[in-house]
Formats: sequence, structure tokens, C-alpha cells
Amino acid sequence: MSKQLPVLAETTGCCAPLTREPIGAPDAAELAPAFKALGDPVRLQLLSLIASHEGGEVCVCELTPRFELTGPTISHHLKVLRQAGLIDCERRGTWVYYWIVPAMLSRLAGLLAVPAGVGA
Amino acid sequence: MSKQLPVLAETTGCCAPLTREPIGAPDAAELAPAFKALGDPVRLQLLSLIASHEGGEVCVCELTPRFELTGPTISHHLKVLRQAGLIDCERRGTWVYYWIVPAMLSRLAGLLAVPAGVGA
Repeated sequence: MSKQLPVLAETTGCCAPLTREPIGAPDAAELAPAFKALGDPVRLQLLSLIASHEGGEVCVCELTPRFELTGPTISHHLKVLRQAGLIDCERRGTWVYYWIVPAMLSRLAGLLAVPAGVGA
Repeated sequence: MSKQLPVLAETTGCCAPLTREPIGAPDAAELAPAFKALGDPVRLQLLSLIASHEGGEVCVCELTPRFELTGPTISHHLKVLRQAGLIDCERRGTWVYYWIVPAMLSRLAGLLAVPAGVGA
């Protein structure tokens, strides 16, 4: 999806795995909000529903019925994920459609990656 | 280090990458606190200093001078990381020594992993 290319370009380069070198203060300040956004069970579930959805995007109208929460509460959680750079969205007519930002997920995964053999 | 083996045994099996299948509510509830613990710049820096330290463990006496924060504040952040299962520690005489729990970091990294080709 071409709409994700600018995001990929912005986030290349950072960061080496935590096990290789200490993260700098600026990178820590930039990435901590993304981890904080993941620090809620409903947001983790929302992100996984979006990330695993066939076709790579999902209508908010499919997300809300999966939770015993109000529409505004779901919208709030989606906004937190979007402000953290983990997902993006687009309104089409009545509904808003969401997709993940793979570059941000990869960046966080890379930071936490542990080389094979460590702790074994 | 044999002290980490029980932790490795407890955490096998969970979780598939978010891009492959939605995370279940129990797993989300279990892992969200670990992401929340990472959602602070000082804690990210502390974790990276511990993870990247030569020999795999570090004395708290080496961590505190790296920040313009009081000892109790650093201790609080270390406690949050420990309660989230990301690090463990042992007192030896005057000082406490910290090391990462590789199985927990790998688990979080695996959850966020994006297959090659997605978003490209």
C-alpha cells in the first residue's frame, strides 16, 4: 500500500536492539509513548484485530462489536494507537478504516529482539 | 545463567505475532503491563543499560549515576520493570545486581514482529 511508504522512510535507522547498545535519551523519549499505547489490554486486542485482518485494513464498524465497550471508548483507544504511530486511518463515507504502520511495529520489535543464545 | 531457566519454561507458547492472529483477552491482560512498563523513557534507558551491559548483569551503583534522578526514583523504575517480568535482580552484600529476562523480551518482540513484505 503506497500510503505507508512515507512512514517507512521516516523511521529507518533507529534503533539497534537494547541488548546491543544503550538507547539514547532522544530515541527513548520518542519510542516510550508507543510502548505506553500498547500498555492497555483493549488497545493490544484492537491492534491485533487490525494487524491480522484479511486485506490489511478493517472498518471501525467491525471492531466495535468485538468489545463490550461504547463506540466513543473504542474511538479513544484507536486515537491513542494512531497518535503513537502504530496505526493509521482514512474516512470513507460513513466509516473510518484502520491499518497498521508496519515500520513502527518492526522498530519496536527490533528494539526488544534478543540474539539467539542469550539466556539459554 | 541457571537462575533464568524457570522463567523461560513459564513463558513458552505465547504469543503468535499480532499480524497472524488476534491476541486473546487473557494474553492481552497478561502482556499489557509489560508494555506499560516500557512506556517511560527512563525505564527504556534503564532496561537498555542492563541489557547491553558486559557480562549480562549490572550493579545498581552503576545505573544511578547515569541519570539526573535520585536513588529512590531509579529504584522505583527498576521495581516497575521487575514487577513486569522484564528484569530480575539479586542482592549481594551492599548492592543489588540486575539482569534482563530474555524470554519476556523475546515474547514481546515476537508479538510485534511483522513478516517481511508487509507494508513494503
